[in-house]
Amino acid sequence: MRDVAIIGVGMTNCGELWEQSLRDLFVEAALGAIDDAGVDHIDSMYVGCMSSGLFVGQEHIGPLMADYLGMGPVPATRVESACASGSVALRTGMLEVASGANDIVLVGGVEKMTDVGGDEATYALATAADQELEVYHGITFPGLYAMIARAHMETYGTTLEDLSWVSVKNHRHGALNPKAQFPHEFTLEQVMNSTPVADPLRLLHCSPVSDGAAAVLLCPLDQAKKYTDQPIKILGTGQATSPMALADRKDPAFLDSVQLSAERAYSMADVGPGDIDVAEVHDCFAISEICCIEALGLVERSQAAGAAASGLTAIGGRIPVNTSGGLKAKGHPVGATGIAQIIEIFEQLRGESDARQVQGARLGLAQNMGGSGASSVVHILERIE
Amino acid sequence: MRDVAIIGVGMTNCGELWEQSLRDLFVEAALGAIDDAGVDHIDSMYVGCMSSGLFVGQEHIGPLMADYLGMGPVPATRVESACASGSVALRTGMLEVASGANDIVLVGGVEKMTDVGGDEATYALATAADQELEVYHGITFPGLYAMIARAHMETYGTTLEDLSWVSVKNHRHGALNPKAQFPHEFTLEQVMNSTPVADPLRLLHCSPVSDGAAAVLLCPLDQAKKYTDQPIKILGTGQATSPMALADRKDPAFLDSVQLSAERAYSMADVGPGDIDVAEVHDCFAISEICCIEALGLVERSQAAGAAASGLTAIGGRIPVNTSGGLKAKGHPVGATGIAQIIEIFEQLRGESDARQVQGARLGLAQNMGGSGASSVVHILERIE
Repeated sequence: MRDVAIIGVGMTNCGELWEQSLRDLFVEAALGAIDDAGVDHIDSMYVGCMSSGLFVGQEHIGPLMADYLGMGPVPATRVESACASGSVALRTGMLEVASGANDIVLVGGVEKMTDVGGDEATYALATAADQELEVYHGITFPGLYAMIARAHMETYGTTLEDLSWVSVKNHRHGALNPKAQFPHEFTLEQVMNSTPVADPLRLLHCSPVSDGAAAVLLCPLDQAKKYTDQPIKILGTGQATSPMALADRKDPAFLDSVQLSAERAYSMADVGPGDIDVAEVHDCFAISEICCIEALGLVERSQAAGAAASGLTAIGGRIPVNTSGGLKAKGHPVGATGIAQIIEIFEQLRGESDARQVQGARLGLAQNMGGSGASSVVHILERIE
Repeated sequence: MRDVAIIGVGMTNCGELWEQSLRDLFVEAALGAIDDAGVDHIDSMYVGCMSSGLFVGQEHIGPLMADYLGMGPVPATRVESACASGSVALRTGMLEVASGANDIVLVGGVEKMTDVGGDEATYALATAADQELEVYHGITFPGLYAMIARAHMETYGTTLEDLSWVSVKNHRHGALNPKAQFPHEFTLEQVMNSTPVADPLRLLHCSPVSDGAAAVLLCPLDQAKKYTDQPIKILGTGQATSPMALADRKDPAFLDSVQLSAERAYSMADVGPGDIDVAEVHDCFAISEICCIEALGLVERSQAAGAAASGLTAIGGRIPVNTSGGLKAKGHPVGATGIAQIIEIFEQLRGESDARQVQGARLGLAQNMGGSGASSVVHILERIE
């Protein structure tokens, strides 16, 4: 396998972007990445998207995006793994470059979620859960994560205050991110007293519905210096699955797929969780950040619930998590999220994160998952000295 | 890049399979392939599917299928390129094996189309066309292909009889295929006098709505003999895109993406169209078989329209096309179609096609496309001597 580097990135803001269609969003992000890398062509492209069919009535978006980007007739493939679609696209594009089949590969993610009403968005998102065993019976994602939160509280003594500190911390980070959908700080009291959604989860424990797109350009590491002085190496990739239905898992409070995808990525990168300087993890709900940092091994299990409150995972703490503001504050355009995480790590490792900068970051990790954790993907990125 | 071989295949019947769900179909095909290859594990898997979201309210089918197959926690990724989803999945899985990241990779395709009514199926399929430039204005796929047919008639003098001979020929082939949805012969008069759908296309020029699944197992060529005496080598792969909207193409009667994807596959395989012994091409409508065989170079452009009538593309002819019965007679479960084509070629090259056998076939080609040809994928397979 050839080593692979990221040589350029581009991203839209996240938000209710009513002036931009699905294709507009993708093209803005992709052109940004192409411009940033300074390439004059691409060899192929991958598009991560969860459900353009249900959100905007458009499948087959690989060739559509290639055409609107002005890059047809390049091969263009859409990949989907619910909210992990972006990172699965990255992994797939990376394997294409690693194989030697192509050199310059564009990988983007996009979702246009605000063209439908709330009920339709809830239905579309619920297609990431088991239709026969879960959704048919009426449950939606806040309900599934509320059950995970309840199980975590029961098993580990996690409290509503612990959950709420995750939101407070991520909004503090997001307030420093100009691309964030909700760049506002909230107090602990505001989070704890926000509208109940699915007990114990309240509105400010939940990531928003967002439009947005993000894209990166890949090439073989040994060609990267032609395009940029600061390529970032993809040091490791890991992907794993778990049973989709919560009821089929041994412990609903522990995310096996996150742990296994991380083990695979650490093994490939030949590093351990203690070597990671900065991480983006999948905080679609506040409880999921807690579950993810423990499954990733970034924080000991006994410390995970309290990590946000203690400052351990804040910028300036031992292991800063979700410096972008995370899905909670930055926004969660589901198909774009995995790539947006990669861009945050890319910029951290290049020292380009301004007020959010983690000083001296050399190794970064991005973890992205689908549904309630039926799929998880971990990438480890490295600054080239 | 490592060379890649197919070592086992499995497939459901095509049809209105009301007793089987999406996951049942996939598992039947995948277990068939696993059993056929005799592997005791898989390293990862890809699932081609066009629109499980619109057809059955289920996205995120990679991990779902891995779990129901009993193969979790392997990495499992869904890829989508409308009706070319199956072959794009094959290409993606092939690149993973070629890269060296994994050895034993399962690639399947599936679609469950008959759980919704005709209007909903028509809507779901139309998401493969340009939502803003085409579908919004009311056109559906029979209409798009009718325009291609009209353009072909105008430019090349193609007749309704030429179109109808494609259906007659493919139903003759399909009548010999026990997996076919419509294994019945039709006369030229029956085809020409069938119900008008979108002028000039009639019902018996159109492939059906189908349920079905198909799967193949891949491994590095140099490991293939451990599993089977008759591995089939993937000698070439090519993928290309075209503008999605017909109005944006230079010549709506010519499928550029098919030509370009073929050129890439021929180049990688170092063969030409004259070397091909048997081909499966994407005859979603009778006109598309004519357009495809000319773009693939299998038949000279002046002979393409008359190729079915003259027997050139029949079993026993110079270049037998759609020996399976094609999408028309075998059925067209859209996400599965690209893999089902590969299985027909695999069996032809192993001499296992019974009454449909093309004697002495050594090189076979499968061409699969999405929508009205916005994406096309070509694979060339070779019998190992």
